[in-house]
Amino acid sequence: MLVVMKAQATPEEIQAVCEHIEQLGFRAHPLPGAQRTAIGITGNQGEVDRGNLEALSGVAEVIRVSKPYKLASRDVKEEDTVIRFAGTDAAIGGRDLAIIAGPCAIENRDQAFAIAEQVAAAGAQFFRGGAYKPRTSPYAFQGLGVEALRIMADIRFRYGLRIVTEAIDNESLDRVAEYADVIQIGARNMQNFSLLKRAGKLRKPVLLKRGLSATLDEFLMAAEYIMSEGNYEVILCERGVRTFADHARNTLDLSIVPAVQRLSHLPILVDPSHGTGRRDSVLPMARAAVATGADGVLVEVHHQPDKALSDGPQSIYPDQFVRMMDEIEQIAPVVGRHLPRGIHIEIAAG
Amino acid sequence: MLVVMKAQATPEEIQAVCEHIEQLGFRAHPLPGAQRTAIGITGNQGEVDRGNLEALSGVAEVIRVSKPYKLASRDVKEEDTVIRFAGTDAAIGGRDLAIIAGPCAIENRDQAFAIAEQVAAAGAQFFRGGAYKPRTSPYAFQGLGVEALRIMADIRFRYGLRIVTEAIDNESLDRVAEYADVIQIGARNMQNFSLLKRAGKLRKPVLLKRGLSATLDEFLMAAEYIMSEGNYEVILCERGVRTFADHARNTLDLSIVPAVQRLSHLPILVDPSHGTGRRDSVLPMARAAVATGADGVLVEVHHQPDKALSDGPQSIYPDQFVRMMDEIEQIAPVVGRHLPRGIHIEIAAG
Amino acid sequence: MLVVMKAQATPEEIQAVCEHIEQLGFRAHPLPGAQRTAIGITGNQGEVDRGNLEALSGVAEVIRVSKPYKLASRDVKEEDTVIRFAGTDAAIGGRDLAIIAGPCAIENRDQAFAIAEQVAAAGAQFFRGGAYKPRTSPYAFQGLGVEALRIMADIRFRYGLRIVTEAIDNESLDRVAEYADVIQIGARNMQNFSLLKRAGKLRKPVLLKRGLSATLDEFLMAAEYIMSEGNYEVILCERGVRTFADHARNTLDLSIVPAVQRLSHLPILVDPSHGTGRRDSVLPMARAAVATGADGVLVEVHHQPDKALSDGPQSIYPDQFVRMMDEIEQIAPVVGRHLPRGIHIEIAAG
Amino acid sequence: MLVVMKAQATPEEIQAVCEHIEQLGFRAHPLPGAQRTAIGITGNQGEVDRGNLEALSGVAEVIRVSKPYKLASRDVKEEDTVIRFAGTDAAIGGRDLAIIAGPCAIENRDQAFAIAEQVAAAGAQFFRGGAYKPRTSPYAFQGLGVEALRIMADIRFRYGLRIVTEAIDNESLDRVAEYADVIQIGARNMQNFSLLKRAGKLRKPVLLKRGLSATLDEFLMAAEYIMSEGNYEVILCERGVRTFADHARNTLDLSIVPAVQRLSHLPILVDPSHGTGRRDSVLPMARAAVATGADGVLVEVHHQPDKALSDGPQSIYPDQFVRMMDEIEQIAPVVGRHLPRGIHIEIAAG
Repeated sequence: MLVVMKAQATPEEIQAVCEHIEQLGFRAHPLPGAQRTAIGITGNQGEVDRGNLEALSGVAEVIRVSKPYKLASRDVKEEDTVIRFAGTDAAIGGRDLAIIAGPCAIENRDQAFAIAEQVAAAGAQFFRGGAYKPRTSPYAFQGLGVEALRIMADIRFRYGLRIVTEAIDNESLDRVAEYADVIQIGARNMQNFSLLKRAGKLRKPVLLKRGLSATLDEFLMAAEYIMSEGNYEVILCERGVRTFADHARNTLDLSIVPAVQRLSHLPILVDPSHGTGRRDSVLPMARAAVATGADGVLVEVHHQPDKALSDGPQSIYPDQFVRMMDEIEQIAPVVGRHLPRGIHIEIAAG
Repeated sequence: MLVVMKAQATPEEIQAVCEHIEQLGFRAHPLPGAQRTAIGITGNQGEVDRGNLEALSGVAEVIRVSKPYKLASRDVKEEDTVIRFAGTDAAIGGRDLAIIAGPCAIENRDQAFAIAEQVAAAGAQFFRGGAYKPRTSPYAFQGLGVEALRIMADIRFRYGLRIVTEAIDNESLDRVAEYADVIQIGARNMQNFSLLKRAGKLRKPVLLKRGLSATLDEFLMAAEYIMSEGNYEVILCERGVRTFADHARNTLDLSIVPAVQRLSHLPILVDPSHGTGRRDSVLPMARAAVATGADGVLVEVHHQPDKALSDGPQSIYPDQFVRMMDEIEQIAPVVGRHLPRGIHIEIAAG
Repeated sequence: MLVVMKAQATPEEIQAVCEHIEQLGFRAHPLPGAQRTAIGITGNQGEVDRGNLEALSGVAEVIRVSKPYKLASRDVKEEDTVIRFAGTDAAIGGRDLAIIAGPCAIENRDQAFAIAEQVAAAGAQFFRGGAYKPRTSPYAFQGLGVEALRIMADIRFRYGLRIVTEAIDNESLDRVAEYADVIQIGARNMQNFSLLKRAGKLRKPVLLKRGLSATLDEFLMAAEYIMSEGNYEVILCERGVRTFADHARNTLDLSIVPAVQRLSHLPILVDPSHGTGRRDSVLPMARAAVATGADGVLVEVHHQPDKALSDGPQSIYPDQFVRMMDEIEQIAPVVGRHLPRGIHIEIAAG
Repeated sequence: MLVVMKAQATPEEIQAVCEHIEQLGFRAHPLPGAQRTAIGITGNQGEVDRGNLEALSGVAEVIRVSKPYKLASRDVKEEDTVIRFAGTDAAIGGRDLAIIAGPCAIENRDQAFAIAEQVAAAGAQFFRGGAYKPRTSPYAFQGLGVEALRIMADIRFRYGLRIVTEAIDNESLDRVAEYADVIQIGARNMQNFSLLKRAGKLRKPVLLKRGLSATLDEFLMAAEYIMSEGNYEVILCERGVRTFADHARNTLDLSIVPAVQRLSHLPILVDPSHGTGRRDSVLPMARAAVATGADGVLVEVHHQPDKALSDGPQSIYPDQFVRMMDEIEQIAPVVGRHLPRGIHIEIAAG
C-alpha cells in the first residue's frame, strides 16, 4: 500500500500519517518526491484498512501496489533515485555516470595506492578494492580484512576517491560500514536475507550485485529487503548470470538495464569485469553498458594483473582504463549522460 | 596433501603426525578408514614439505590431492561416509535409505504433530520442518523461530524422529544446533562462506543443499568449507537447478548423484519437492532418486497443503507419502539398499 | 476444436462429419478412443462455426481446445497412445517397456551384427543405429547412409529387432522411411518444421527427440506439426537439455516425464546416453527413467566403445546392457510396467 | 591444414596447388588476402602429407590449424571478411555499419512498401522481411512465400534496398536464392546441416543466426559447414540465447561480439528485436550492440505493430527507427565505424 500525500501536506501531517501506520503494527516509509511525498506501508500482518487512512489530514489517495516489491518499485516512487555523497559532487543515479574502479583485492598498500593513483588520474570518482573476499575455495586468499579497509581509508584521504568494498557477513558488514562510502553485497549473498536486513538498518548506500541465477523480480525483492528496514539507498549492479555459454565466464545480461529502469527508480550499474571474466571483453562491454543507459560501470583495474592474487585475467591495465574513460565519455551524451572527470570535494568554510 | 598412515600405526603415532602438521601452521584432519587412517592437510600457506612427513613414524606415504576439494574427495577417503545418530539405528549414507519428511514450515504445534505422527507411522526416521524461512519477499511468513524448534524437540521426544531444520544465519545456527539433529543449510546459502565456516566449527551433521546454479565443483567446495573447520559430517542434497525449462519450478538434476559418488565419499540425498515444485511430480522423482542410487530423499508432507503458509503446491499428502515409502521400498534392493521402517531407540540399561 | 462423436455413432456418420470439416477448408483428424471417436479440427483459417457441427448426425458435442497443441493434447485424446508394430508383439506406450539399443553409428556390418546379436540376446526389441549422422563438424564421420540402412534391414531379418534410425533431411527421410520401423528426428531438428511436416505425411512412427533448449510446450508443438499432417504415431524422447552444469554433457530432465504424461497421450522415452554423455551415468539414469514412469529407454551400446567412430565415451558395454535390463525388469512392476524379453514375430499361416 | 602461398605466387601456381590438393581427395579453398593467398584444406579423410605440399612451386609454408573450425578461423584468414554487393556501395563487415530493417513478415504489398519507404528514408541499406516463417505452431501464419519474395524484389527495384530474407528448407532456399541478396538461416536451423551444406553450394551471402543454445564453437562450426562447400560469404548474427531470465524473451549475449572477433574473420551482427522481444528494449540494445563493436544490427520495424501478424510486440515504430539511426550514428565513431545513410547504386555506363 502507498499513501500519496497532497502536494501541500505539511511535515506534521506526514508525521501523523506515519505514526498512525506504525500504531497499526506496520512500518511507514516516507519517500519525498519532487511534487509530493508518498508513504510506503510494509509489514507482513496482512492488509491495512484503506478507508481510515484516506480520512487522515493531508492524504490525497491510498494506492495498492501490485508488485511483490513495493519500495523498490517505480509505482511507489516515480523519480529516479540519486545517491549523493556528502561534501562532494559525486553521485550515483543522476545525469553523471558513476565509475567505480580498482583491484579485485587489496593486496598491500603499495599495490592499492599505485592503482588508486592511476584511476584517480583518469577521472574515476569511486575506488573499489576487496578487503573480505568470498572465495569458492576455503584455501584461497580470503582478503586482508581490516588492514585493507584502513588502506582504502587512506586512499580516500589521499585522492578523494569514495570507497566501495564488499561485506560478506555481519561481522565484516559492521567493519565495512565504518570505513566505506558504499557497502557492496556480492552476487553470492544476494539472497543472504539476514545480511540484507542488517544492511537495511545502516544508513550507508548499498551496492547490491545480482545473483548468478537471479530473476529480475528476485533482484528487486533483495533490494526490497534492504529498503524494508529503512535504508533506501540501494544501487543495483548487473554482473553476469550463469548460462551454458562458455566463451565468457558469465553471460552479461545487459537487457536488464532497461528492464530495471521500467520497473524501479533505483540506479543500475554494470560490472563488465565479472560479467565476462576476460580482459579483452571488458572495454567492449563497458561501452555497451553505457550505451544501454546504465548509471555507470564497476571495473577491475590492476597495474600488474599477472601477479594479482585474484581475478587477474579479467583486470584491465591502467592505460586500458584511460581508454575506457575516453570512449565512455563520447558515448555518454548519446544517452543524455555526462562523464565527470575526478571528484570535487567541498571545503567547509571555517 | 594427504598422509596415509600404516595399517598398524598407533594412535600415538597418528597424534604425533597431526601435531607436527599443526606446528607447521597447517591444519591436520585425521580421517579413520576401514584399513588405516589418513590425515588430510589443509591451509592456505602453500605447500607442506613432503620429505619430512614421510620420515615420521607410522607414515606409509604422502600423496598430493589434485582436486580443489580435498577432504570431500574420494581420493582422501575411499569409503563412503556414514553418518550415525547416537542412541538410535538411524544413519545417512550407509545401506539404509534415509527418509526425511515433514512440512515446509512449522506453523503451529497441532499442524506439526499431526504431520509428524503420520510420517512416523509411515516409517520415516527423520522429521523436517522450517523454523527459520529464507523467503524471497521480506513481507512473507518468516517462520516461528525458537518456538518451532521447541515444537520439533517435543516431536523428537514423542515420536523418536531425528530433527532436520534450516539455519539461515549465525544467530539461527546457534539455536538450530542446540535443538536439531541435522542442521540444514539452504540452497541460497550454499556459498555463504561465513555460515559454512561457522557450521564447520560445530560437531553436528550438516545437510548442505546445492545452490540454484552451483556446479558440482562448487558444491563440493562448499562442503569443503565446512570440513576444513573440522566438521566432517556433511550430507549433500540435490534440490533442482535453475534453467529455461518451465514445466517445473526447478530442473532436478539427478545425474549429479552418480557424479558425486564418483568424486566424493559424502552421502547425497535428493529433494524432489523443491526440485519440481509440483505435488504430482514428487513421487515419480522420489522413485527416480532412489533408482539412481541416492542415499535417501527429503520430501515435504502436509496434511492440509491448501492451507500451508508456504510451499503448499509442492507438499504431498500423508497418504501419498505412504505410497512413496512402499514404492521406494521395492526399488531399494535393485540398488543394493534397504528402506528401514521407523527408528529404533536404544534404551541405555540402568 | 474437437468434435466428440456419440458412442453409437456409425463409421458413416464419422465420415460425414470429417467431410463436412474438410469442405469448410479445415483438416479433420478422426481419433478413435476406447468408448467413442473424437475428431480433431486443425487449420489456420480461423474458427469453425460450432452450431453447424453440433447439428450433424452422430455428434455428441463440440469442444474448444485451449492448449496451443491440439492433437497431442490429452484434452483431445484421453487414453495413452500405444504404437504397435504389425506382425509382432512389440509396442511403445503400453504396459510393456520399450528398450531401444544399439551403437551411435553403424560403422560396418560386423560391428552392427556383433552389437545387434548381444542386445537381442539380452531381450531388446528395438535396434538403433545411425545411418545419417548430424555432426557438429563438417569434417567428422557423417554416417554410411544407405549402406547402413541395408545392414539394419538385414539385422531386422536376422534377429527380428525393429529398427530405429535417424533422418536428417528430406532426402534421408525418404530412405529411412523405406527401411526403418521407427523414424528418429534428432534434437537439432526438433524445430526443423519442414522435416516435421514431411514426416507427418508418412505413415510410420516417428521418434521425436527434445531440442537442447526446448520447453515442454515447444516439444509438444513439434509433435503437433507431425500430427497435423495426419501421422499420429509420435514417440517423444527426453535426451537432456543444455544448462550451466558441467558434470555431464547435458542435464537429463526427467521431470518432463510426469509433465508430458499430464498433458499428452503420447509415449515418452528417455535417452540416458546422450542425456549424460558418460558411460558410468547411463545405468543410474536408465533406472531412474523407468522409475519416473517413462515408457522405455533408448541407449547406446557398443562392444568396443574405445574404437567407436562417434559417442564412444557414452556407449555402454554389452554386459552393462544385460545388467541394465535386469535392473529395469525389477523396477518395472513398481510403476505398473513389465519388461518383455525379446520380440515375438507372428508367422502368418500359408 | 593451411597452405600459405608466397606473396609473389602466380595465379597458375595457386591453381596448381589447388589441383594437387583436390587430386589427393581433399577440398582446396583459395582465400585471397591483402598480402598473399592462403589455401585452406578440408575433408574428412585424415591428414594431408605436409612435405609434398611444401615442395610445390609458390608455397611459402604449410600450417596446421588447431581449431575445429578452419575456414571460419582467423588463423586461416587474418583480415576481416567484407561482403560487398555488386553495383552498390553497400557492405557488411567493413568500416560501414550495416543496418538491416523491416517487418518480421511480409503481410501484403502495402504493408511492405510502407515500411520499406520509411526505413529507406531513414538511411537503411538493407530490407528484411519474412516470406517463409518458421513458426512454433503449425496453425500460425507461415508466410506468403513466393508472393512475398516478389514484393521484396519490387522493393529492391523501387528503393534500392538490398533484400535479406529467410530460407527454412531446401525448397525455400532455392527460391530465396533467386530473389534475395542475403539468405538468412534462422536460429532453429543453425544446426540443420543439410540446409547449411546446400547454402554452401550457392554463391550468395548467408546470414546465419546463432541457435538458442549454441556455444561459440558450435556457431562457428555451423558457419564452417557453409564455407566447407565453397561459400565464404557468411555473416554471423547474435539474436539472444535461452536462459532462466524472464524479463526478456531471450538473453542477448553481446559478449559474443568481441569473442567472435578474436577467433574469426567473419562479420557479426546483432538482432536486438528477437534478442529482447520487447519494443522498449530494442533501442538500448541496438546502441549497445554498436558500442561493443558489432558490424551492424538487424531490427524489426513495423508501422502498425499492433496489427502485425507476427512479432508485433518487439517491432519498433518507424520514428523509433529514425531515432535509433541517429543514436547509432553518434556511437559509431567511438568504435572506428561510420553509419552510411542510404545506398548508392552504380549506374553502368551504356
